[in-house]
Parts: sequence; C-alpha cells; structure tokens
Amino acid sequence: MNDSSSGNGANGSNGAGRREGPDFAEIRKIIADFPAPDVDAVLQTRAREATLTKPPGALGRLEEITEWVAMWQGRTPPNVTHARVAVFAGNHGVAARGVSAMPSAVTGPLVPNINAGGAAINQLTELADADLRVYEMALDEPTADFTQGPALSEEDAARAIAYGMMSVEAGVELMAFGEMGIGNTTSAAALCHALYGGAAADWVGPGTGVTGDAFAAKVAAVEAGVAANADLLGDPLQVLRALGGHEIAAIAGGIIAARLAGVPVLLDGYTCTAAAAVLHAVDEHAIDHCMVGHLSAEPAHRALCEKLDKVPLLALAMRLGEGSGAALAIQVVRAALACHTGMATFESAGVSGKAN
Amino acid sequence: MNDSSSGNGANGSNGAGRREGPDFAEIRKIIADFPAPDVDAVLQTRAREATLTKPPGALGRLEEITEWVAMWQGRTPPNVTHARVAVFAGNHGVAARGVSAMPSAVTGPLVPNINAGGAAINQLTELADADLRVYEMALDEPTADFTQGPALSEEDAARAIAYGMMSVEAGVELMAFGEMGIGNTTSAAALCHALYGGAAADWVGPGTGVTGDAFAAKVAAVEAGVAANADLLGDPLQVLRALGGHEIAAIAGGIIAARLAGVPVLLDGYTCTAAAAVLHAVDEHAIDHCMVGHLSAEPAHRALCEKLDKVPLLALAMRLGEGSGAALAIQVVRAALACHTGMATFESAGVSGKAN
Repeated sequence: MNDSSSGNGANGSNGAGRREGPDFAEIRKIIADFPAPDVDAVLQTRAREATLTKPPGALGRLEEITEWVAMWQGRTPPNVTHARVAVFAGNHGVAARGVSAMPSAVTGPLVPNINAGGAAINQLTELADADLRVYEMALDEPTADFTQGPALSEEDAARAIAYGMMSVEAGVELMAFGEMGIGNTTSAAALCHALYGGAAADWVGPGTGVTGDAFAAKVAAVEAGVAANADLLGDPLQVLRALGGHEIAAIAGGIIAARLAGVPVLLDGYTCTAAAAVLHAVDEHAIDHCMVGHLSAEPAHRALCEKLDKVPLLALAMRLGEGSGAALAIQVVRAALACHTGMATFESAGVSGKAN
Repeated sequence: MNDSSSGNGANGSNGAGRREGPDFAEIRKIIADFPAPDVDAVLQTRAREATLTKPPGALGRLEEITEWVAMWQGRTPPNVTHARVAVFAGNHGVAARGVSAMPSAVTGPLVPNINAGGAAINQLTELADADLRVYEMALDEPTADFTQGPALSEEDAARAIAYGMMSVEAGVELMAFGEMGIGNTTSAAALCHALYGGAAADWVGPGTGVTGDAFAAKVAAVEAGVAANADLLGDPLQVLRALGGHEIAAIAGGIIAARLAGVPVLLDGYTCTAAAAVLHAVDEHAIDHCMVGHLSAEPAHRALCEKLDKVPLLALAMRLGEGSGAALAIQVVRAALACHTGMATFESAGVSGKAN
C-alpha cells in the first residue's frame, strides 16, 4: 500500500478547525483515563518466544518490540498488516525570524511533491508496505510568532489535537507519525526548553542546516518564546499551544487516539518526539505505547529521548522529518513480528535447545 | 525471493574440499590486486543526491550507503535487485572444551530448520526480498581443537576459502554473509586476540549465553589457542587456519569473491566480522567494500568494529548469528537506494531549495 493522497479535508484556510473535539480539560481527562498495558498479552508472547529455535534473548530488541506490540494491541500473536505513516504539515510564525535555512514557502510545495510520489517518505513508506497520509494544516495561516505571545489559541490547539486524532482510523494496527514545517525544530526546541529547562542553546540544533547568525537567531527566538509565554509554562498543554504548532499539536492528538485504539506508535525525530514530550509531561505513562523510530542527527534529540527514557530503534544520522525515520523503523517492527510468528519451535523443528 | 535450499554440494564428508581453488600464495596475490573503488560513480551519485528534494545531507547514512554501493558496483545509479544472504555452517573442535551453552550436535539440526523455513533468517530474508543459501561445511568433521595446534591445515583452509567464493554467483548485486557453528564465537575471540593482542578476556563474550565456569573455559581456550599456535601468528591467513573454522574461512572467501565481482557486502556479527578482520590484516583496504550490518550484543564486536573503522548500520542487541543482522540491514540498503532513485529533484518538483 502506498496511498500518498492528502488526508481528508484540512487543506486551505484552517486545517485545524471546522470540527468539534475535546477541549483541554477533556483531553486531560482522556489522558488520565488512558488504557493500561495488557500484561497477559506480554506474558503469552514471552512464553511463545521462549520456545523458538534460537538462544533465549538472541533476537535482542526484536523481542522487546514484539512484546511491546502485543502489550498495546492487547492480543497474541501481535500483528501488523495495516501500518500507516501520518505526516502533518504546518507553518510557524517564528520562521519569519530567520531561524531556518529554508523559507516557509517551501512547506507548501513539498506537499504536492509527496502527493506526486517524489519525496523520501514515499519511497520509505512503500518499502515498509504502509499507507501514507499527509495532512496540510493551515499552511497559509502560520501560527503566531511565539516570541510575541502564544503561537496558538487554546481553542485552535485543541482543534489541531482533535484533527490529529482522526488520523488513527479503524483497521490501522501501527502508526508512524511525522511532520513537515519550516521553523518547527525551533518550536520543538522551545517546547523542550519550557518543559525541561537548561539553557535554550542546549535544545537548539542546525535543523535543515542553519549556522552562524541564523543559529544565533534560533537560540534567541527560543529564549524569547519561553520568556514571552512565562505565565503559560506551568501546564504542558498550555506549553504546547504557547510554543508548538498545528502539526505538533496534531501529532499529540494522533498519539492520544492511538492509545485509545490499541495502536502502537513509532515516533520520528526531534519535532515529533517533542510533541510526545508534552503528553509525557501531562502523565509519565502517557507515551508508553510509543517507541522512537530513529535518533535524529538534530543533537538535542538524544537528550530528549533520555528525558523520555526511550532508546531509538535506529540511528542513521537522518534529519529530514516527513516521518522518514519512523517509516524506516516500521520495517524493524515487521522483522520482529515476522520472526515471532514465522519461526519454528524447538519442538516442531525436532531440535534440542538444552545445554550439554 | 526466498529460496532456502542448501547450497550446491558440500554436505557430507568435507564440504570444504573436492574443488580446486587458490592456495594461500595465490589468495595473497588476489588481495594485493583487488579492484579499486570507482570514484567517478561516487561523484555522479553525489551530484544526483544534491538535486533531490531534501536538505543536503538530510538522509544521513542512507546517503553514505548509496555512495558506497555505487562505489563498489561501479555504476550509477546503484541498484540492488538481487540480494543474497549466504550462511555458512561449520563445527569446531574447541566446542568439546565446554565453551558454549549449546552442544555441537545443535548445528546440524538447525540447518534443516532453515531449509524448512523455520529459522529467524528465513523470516528476515523474505522481508528483505533476498535469496538465501545455506552451506553446510563438513559438520561431521569439526576442525581440530585449536588449543592443541592449528584448527585447519593450510590446504583445508584454502579449500574452505575457495568454497566460500562460489557463493557469489553471477547476477547477485549485494551479499550478506552469516554463519552458524557452535563454538565459533570462541574461534572469533581467538582470531581477534591473535590479530590485536590485549587480554584474551577482552575478546570473549557470552556467545549463546555462557556464564561462570563455561565462560572461564572459553577464556582459557582462547589463551591456549593463541599459545599453541604462536609460530603461525605472524601471517593473517595462517591465523585464520590456526584459530578459525570452515565457515569463517568460507566467509573470508565470499568477501574476496564479492570484491572481484563488484558486489558490496554486509557483514553480520562478531564471528562474521572476525572473518573480515583476517582480510583487513592482510591489507587494510581489503574490506572497504564491506559494511557491518548490525552491532552484535557480543561485547567484543564493538571493539572489533573500531579496529576496522566500521560503524554498524544497526544496533538492536541481536546475537543470533545466521546472518540475521546483515539480512535486516539489507532493508536499510534498499531504503537508501529507493530514496536515491525514486525521489524527485527540486527542478522536477518545481520547488526552490534555496535559502531565503
């Protein structure tokens, strides 16, 4: 499957709007009531794993992945026939401050490139036998410049979250989230700086390749953003609307919906993981159903993953976004499940696994 | 493609024999005359890469992989339609010293398990759209116990190398090598200790899971092997026959044949990389056409990769052998090539990639 058409609606004036969804209070309630992991499914999976024709533990993280999928799908054997890559695209007012090597005008034309099959994510999604949905979110209406106040109103942020929730449709068994948006590593850095403190520069990296004055402008924008929104930083969802963006809020929504639907999630790089970090700040177990697919070349991604106690599945120095690292990680998940379900047992193969 | 039948012949009395092949002197000459990398192919590949719809370098190691395949295939665009996983199975006299958690009798029955499609490598090969060849090498005639003298005669080692060379058949565009053989991480540790010095214990790990007395026996066997073969350790091919095994020599042969045929190579874990290390000791450029597919959980693999200046593509804590890590890495190579050949250029997509 490789359906690269854009997602339902959402093009044009305000992709984040025009639908009812939960407000912040309701979102907090949803997270507080999140489904727990299915421990029985893990134990059953582990029991089968122990019978397979290999030394115990020899498949390493593939065994961890298999248990994780079972845990959150709540079934044995775990199975992923239908995987989806959902890419949310948004624009950021802060981009006008010269924080990126690319102009905001690039975000828009890159969407048709995906729709025409010409982006990296198209190739990676096809190899992963996943479907691809791209959601344009109000590209002509960037967020407000967060150095001057909140990037989004609470209402707009809630709408974007609700919009992202719709990406988890019935039948999807694994979600990989990604993003596009010039300026959004600046937004991710600001979110991390607000959530974790430290120096702004600790959370800022080159993004698409900024250096020199542009890099300094990026650090300054992060500092200014946190300062300008100081009164909102006590609450993670307020942090999200103050310093995030449409696509970041939508990814948070997708992560929420996946948890409710029993769908494990692969996160892409820094920006995508920053969206997850907001939910983690609401409840430290809120993203237990998420793995980080790939360690981004964006330097702060490593520190962010450590804050979240996540070890990325892949580390290939990619820094493209588009969900590219998460899409590649789908193949690792498929490998794990294929081994678990396809391998013979010592008994069926007639081999003694006992030590001599 | 997933043809899991055993390789041509080689079952039974002495899989390494019965064919003519180069002797050690001729092998040294072949290595000295190895084809150089195709720099033009790299430059052409890099030129196309710069036009693709992404920030420069944003695909990270995928771009490195693409250039590497082009460099050794000597063509642009690089292409892998036909990938092969070649798994060599051998038995080791040193296994009788209690160095493994598994009995040597396991190696034999595991081959039919692969032929029946029940092993991890079957699932991983199928996902990678590769073919699979398993070569049983004199399983009923283990190497001599290297703590008492050379594991193999020079003639037998040369035959095993020649046998391994046959795995690189015409039409194959990417090779992934792997091994099976109870006791062969002991052999790999002895090879590394002989090639790189240090303490024997630096190169010994748990393998299939040895601890306590068995682990001590493994360290002692490595020390004894190096001591018993001290007069042979000045020459890497003599090291190979003194401390290696049929499957390890065959992998070295496969690596040689791949270089001659313009076929890039993915190495699996510790034992497979130790085979490559022998060639690297002959000539430091002899394995430039090889990447390490996966960093094994066997602790010494990391140090060995550093000696060879190789950064493994994957690190999933696997320690199974069978070529499993290399097979998984085939998918990463496919991802790299798919992006390189399938992506649109900024010009074709009508997008400006220029900075604002």
